[in-house]
Amino acid sequence: MTIGLDMMGGDFAPLEAMKGALHYLQEADHPATLVLVGDEPTLDELISEYKVPEDKIKLVHAEQVIDMHEHPTKALKEKPKSSIAIGFHLLASGNIDAFISAGNTGAMLVGALFSIKALEGVLRPTISTIIPKENGGTGLLLDVGLNADCKPEQLNQFAVMGSVFAQTILGIENPKVGLMNVGEEEGKGNLLCQATYPLLKENKHINFVGNLEGRDVFLDKADVMVCEGFTGNIILKLAESLYDITQRKKIQHEYFDRFNFENYGGTPVLGVNKPVIIGHGISQAKSFKNMIVLAQKMIDKKVMQRMKEELV
Amino acid sequence: MTIGLDMMGGDFAPLEAMKGALHYLQEADHPATLVLVGDEPTLDELISEYKVPEDKIKLVHAEQVIDMHEHPTKALKEKPKSSIAIGFHLLASGNIDAFISAGNTGAMLVGALFSIKALEGVLRPTISTIIPKENGGTGLLLDVGLNADCKPEQLNQFAVMGSVFAQTILGIENPKVGLMNVGEEEGKGNLLCQATYPLLKENKHINFVGNLEGRDVFLDKADVMVCEGFTGNIILKLAESLYDITQRKKIQHEYFDRFNFENYGGTPVLGVNKPVIIGHGISQAKSFKNMIVLAQKMIDKKVMQRMKEELV
Repeated sequence: MTIGLDMMGGDFAPLEAMKGALHYLQEADHPATLVLVGDEPTLDELISEYKVPEDKIKLVHAEQVIDMHEHPTKALKEKPKSSIAIGFHLLASGNIDAFISAGNTGAMLVGALFSIKALEGVLRPTISTIIPKENGGTGLLLDVGLNADCKPEQLNQFAVMGSVFAQTILGIENPKVGLMNVGEEEGKGNLLCQATYPLLKENKHINFVGNLEGRDVFLDKADVMVCEGFTGNIILKLAESLYDITQRKKIQHEYFDRFNFENYGGTPVLGVNKPVIIGHGISQAKSFKNMIVLAQKMIDKKVMQRMKEELV
Repeated sequence: MTIGLDMMGGDFAPLEAMKGALHYLQEADHPATLVLVGDEPTLDELISEYKVPEDKIKLVHAEQVIDMHEHPTKALKEKPKSSIAIGFHLLASGNIDAFISAGNTGAMLVGALFSIKALEGVLRPTISTIIPKENGGTGLLLDVGLNADCKPEQLNQFAVMGSVFAQTILGIENPKVGLMNVGEEEGKGNLLCQATYPLLKENKHINFVGNLEGRDVFLDKADVMVCEGFTGNIILKLAESLYDITQRKKIQHEYFDRFNFENYGGTPVLGVNKPVIIGHGISQAKSFKNMIVLAQKMIDKKVMQRMKEELV
């Protein structure tokens, strides 16, 4: 198993990416081989300095970097030797089994959508976020921004993909799936929800528990919460802001500590053929390590394969 | 000036409604006459018991009550002698200048939409909520659930109505208006936002500051935050749940105390000819008093008239 890591992406690259890789190699029972993509001389120096075990890494030189604020499509086209472009090339050609970057999010999404293929039958891939539940558990909200406008059939697929992810990665047996809405009863909501509800209700591949309201996001009513990317993105960023607000106001509580989304390492793109994980720009060693762990788990558990089977 | 109050609506009616009315009459500099609608014998007893000054109140008997869980349209039709039906009758016929109830929300909305008229030119009335800003200020979010699906022209009108409300009632000069969205730049978002942005940008009646993201809801970026009722309702209920969560987890902080939406008294319906205010079912004396104060302020400041002028 080989996992590709963009060493040039993120505010603290390549140092924190290298430290994350090192911690992964030190801590994992059966570490995958890491393919580190970036400026080779810089990486070589760090490898010596931090004594990274060289038998478990491979270097792939990338002489360009896509900056955080570059236009994604344009940058991918104009910088074929960038670490992100090379990473997706390696992924598409089968030289790595997963690809991780904390670099330009747009470029990562464009790369995931166009360099590797969507799973057979998937209308649109999706991105999700972990939601810290009040009872200590963990929920999954999707889509959180890749698809601002959705069709009912897409939400139905998000429900299946989210369900598989919750089972295989979050370890939730028979995850409860809910539809983000504005009322509890069937028939409530906007036109999209009204059309989506019957699809979810009839879907044999999920454990549908009905509509969710805003007050249910942090409660235990559902493990997998499905919505279009507009609503999901607003919920995600609002939840992220709670951590910042409690930090600024010096409100210390373990519950709000769990709103520090850096801890979760990154957002996997679901519905594509191979694991692609997008990290926060501010990712540090711990995030990079967690992203590599997540990628390994997604490969180990054959998450993509499971999704494909459930989507039939 | 006369303000109608449904004495039978809410979990603690009629006692808390009566106490709220009494506190209002005791505390207001120039109190309006209150028209108390409900079961006359019960109200008479409470008036004696609490020594409510009888020169400032009028009783209107209502022998029926619409329960919290009745179907709104059906209930209004089948219970013409209910306090809500009579209240709207008094409002439509000009016998009262505003109507307040903490009863069946759906019946209040249906009553507001069909018993009294929408302001000239208003496509759809709207309901809003107060948002506690991190800096101690107060924002306004609308629509929060009356219109789950919206057209760009509706959002443009919500922006104007919200702006007038923020100026006249919240006392915010030249309120900043923002569009709830998933990215900062013009052109971002779902199809609705993409079509709404240019309307807001060209609208001379508002101070448009651009797109907002989820993280801006509690920040100072905009005073008036505009969205369709689906997103707004989810944000509102999520915000309400934060108060409950912090209470349950014993997280004490004045900022989260401001998420106790009971304090705000009620939600006015904007875009109709006369003030209609809908209270929480759990309203107690303080909420009722605050709703009466709000109704008086809306009449005093000619909020509806101002909206009509700005919407031209």
